[in-house]
Amino acid sequence: MDEPTAQNWEERDRSHLIHPFLPADRKDRVVIVSGEGCRLTDARGRSYLDATAGMWLCQVGHGRREIAEAAADQLRRLEYSTVFWDFTHDRAIALAERLVRLGGVPGRRVLFTGGGSEGVEVALRMARGYHHRRGAADRTWILTRSAAYHGAGYASGELSDFPAYTTGFGPHPGQVHRLSAPYPYALGQPPERVTDLLLQELEAAIAEIGAHRIAALIGEPVLALGGMVAPPPDYWPRVAQALRRHGILLILDEVVTAFGRTGAWYAADRMGVRPDLTVLSKGLTSGYFPLGAVLADEAIAGVLDSHEGFPAGHTYSGHPTGCAVALANLDIIEREGLLAAADRAGALLGEGLGGLRELPRVGEVRQYGLMAAVEIVQGHGRREPLPEGTYALADRIRDRTGVLVRGGPRALTLAPPLVISDAEVAEAVAGVREVLTETRTHT
Amino acid sequence: MDEPTAQNWEERDRSHLIHPFLPADRKDRVVIVSGEGCRLTDARGRSYLDATAGMWLCQVGHGRREIAEAAADQLRRLEYSTVFWDFTHDRAIALAERLVRLGGVPGRRVLFTGGGSEGVEVALRMARGYHHRRGAADRTWILTRSAAYHGAGYASGELSDFPAYTTGFGPHPGQVHRLSAPYPYALGQPPERVTDLLLQELEAAIAEIGAHRIAALIGEPVLALGGMVAPPPDYWPRVAQALRRHGILLILDEVVTAFGRTGAWYAADRMGVRPDLTVLSKGLTSGYFPLGAVLADEAIAGVLDSHEGFPAGHTYSGHPTGCAVALANLDIIEREGLLAAADRAGALLGEGLGGLRELPRVGEVRQYGLMAAVEIVQGHGRREPLPEGTYALADRIRDRTGVLVRGGPRALTLAPPLVISDAEVAEAVAGVREVLTETRTHT
Repeated sequence: MDEPTAQNWEERDRSHLIHPFLPADRKDRVVIVSGEGCRLTDARGRSYLDATAGMWLCQVGHGRREIAEAAADQLRRLEYSTVFWDFTHDRAIALAERLVRLGGVPGRRVLFTGGGSEGVEVALRMARGYHHRRGAADRTWILTRSAAYHGAGYASGELSDFPAYTTGFGPHPGQVHRLSAPYPYALGQPPERVTDLLLQELEAAIAEIGAHRIAALIGEPVLALGGMVAPPPDYWPRVAQALRRHGILLILDEVVTAFGRTGAWYAADRMGVRPDLTVLSKGLTSGYFPLGAVLADEAIAGVLDSHEGFPAGHTYSGHPTGCAVALANLDIIEREGLLAAADRAGALLGEGLGGLRELPRVGEVRQYGLMAAVEIVQGHGRREPLPEGTYALADRIRDRTGVLVRGGPRALTLAPPLVISDAEVAEAVAGVREVLTETRTHT
Repeated sequence: MDEPTAQNWEERDRSHLIHPFLPADRKDRVVIVSGEGCRLTDARGRSYLDATAGMWLCQVGHGRREIAEAAADQLRRLEYSTVFWDFTHDRAIALAERLVRLGGVPGRRVLFTGGGSEGVEVALRMARGYHHRRGAADRTWILTRSAAYHGAGYASGELSDFPAYTTGFGPHPGQVHRLSAPYPYALGQPPERVTDLLLQELEAAIAEIGAHRIAALIGEPVLALGGMVAPPPDYWPRVAQALRRHGILLILDEVVTAFGRTGAWYAADRMGVRPDLTVLSKGLTSGYFPLGAVLADEAIAGVLDSHEGFPAGHTYSGHPTGCAVALANLDIIEREGLLAAADRAGALLGEGLGGLRELPRVGEVRQYGLMAAVEIVQGHGRREPLPEGTYALADRIRDRTGVLVRGGPRALTLAPPLVISDAEVAEAVAGVREVLTETRTHT
């Protein structure tokens, strides 16, 4: 059988697929056919430098043989079995144990999920269910933050601050209150003032809604899709303290930040904050298999096990092959020292992108671990973001230079695999620079 | 390293995992360690006959080498890449094309999801988004049915008729209206009267809510978790006709029924009904990989592509390895003639279970394709279901006979792999008979 041509793939794609976020008048397609390390190749033979790690999930790089072998071994031995009721299997147990141990905080337990959105919704159920079973049934409100992304389900999508995800799809559950994010540049505030301001806002919101009606606050340790924004160092410890005083649970959405992305297994540990619930996915398997997990403090887990147990589970929860893939992935992260590698590559990337600060369109350059962003502004003294966001800019970087970065409402973001080399970091920076420099001259 | 003992696994499980639907006082664990064909084996070396096909998903049987090879090949070549925006890949295109072709109805397109719950929520967004973009923004209500299971997300869980999934976890989105299911035994009606009655109920609900406020009706072609109930043959065609007259979309949740479970690729084709949207998962990969899809009529897909495109997607949508696994799984179903095999094994299972009709606790035996149920009643002339459901009965069948069946609110259900042998069908029937016979004597 002849291999189909790139053009043939593109035509067949247009007739058979619906792509998220792709308008009908957009006819081009990038048909990726292979990946290795930090490189992807399309059906026309073009090579790309993947500075997005897929969707910020591919910690160990593409095409790792060790993971393919681990998956195949498990698929042959026990491809799938449930963890509902009293059924369990050895791979889920081994992985749960490891996830608890990585945090260095004993007394946690794990509920497996199929991904990040699902995990966020399980965490909402855990928080509300915990209060409900303890007799505080009014504690149903959720505090979230601006620029947040917590998923695309009906509840998780409503927590996200991207109105396109919800407009025209309602009704949504409601009882969500949005606070400001610790995003100094967007707030137009110096970082050292931000925590004080946001703590005041938090206390005012709690007073207004009533602590007895609030179940939890959810937040990303570092805002990811919102623009790779790390909060001031005192933000999370002080927020956690305030919440604890009011009996409000803290849910950390570490879907992007965990497993080395910030140079630590969990960003919470690096930031000195102890959440009640932690949502994990993405880097857990480096994207080789859809899998997520929620880590719950024993104080909560014990309550959820009461009555008939915790009535929330999905078919693929704790998929044996997913757990085997995760274990192989964590082995690679450990063996190759990828936490330290992420810190080192992150510093290099931050330094390289820092050189773009002089460009008039660049408002700010941010980096935390191996998460980086270039905040794009209207320029020539105007700090406002581009009305259309940075999506077209990201496309132009891809098309002109082969470097994959991600666009967003305000910033270009980069989060390459943790195995990125120094030369590849330099290539990524050069790609961004090339297009931002050109942009200066003709728009 | 010594292999851990079964007891060791069980202890570690209790300290590290939260299981869906497992109360704290339940200390036993079944630690499954391997699977082959229709058999699973636990850490104590006990073998089980899996008459549940995992969670009703394992069409081709456990431990298939061909699928392990296909997965490993894809993991080495391109383990993951996104289908957001204009990115795509050859495996998603090949699978989408095949899913459309299997239905024999051209003019459909596919959006990939990570599983059933996610797919149902994507279908809700598609239905509401379609109306919204066509200027019928008031069409937001969803009609669902009693005994339905459509997932465990905030919106999909609310469509399901299992109050434990929602109690204490709210708020939920709302605007859901529940109709009666075509379940003659539960309705206490002869099958030939059921469609007339339910059509009247449907028309009355539409009149009450107002057609201009209703987006869609969602239903399983055959109720699965609700008790493996196939509707009277005229039900779906007449419901579809009524909905079309009122401009209400029909979403079929074929998560359980597709890919041979009813002897056809899609149950809709067998039942002579053409849905606007079809939700798929489970049998698509036989559970070897979490993957789902929504099939949308071009009339809807075209509207969703307007403006900025359809803003709903998840990280793992269209996972290349999931698509490769699905293609290998569909190859096996085709090559081994598993649609016909399901029909044949289903008839045999229906016949075998039919022999239990004389037992006083058996209210009815149902079978459609390779889905079967034994409706358990209080007996001695009382048609009411057991107040506690059939969960403990399913456990007893497992523990005494090694046959895995599923409990539920009213019925014991069976849906084994499509590759089940005649001897295994007989073994499953014997397991159910043994415990139901014993039950008669001492409860």
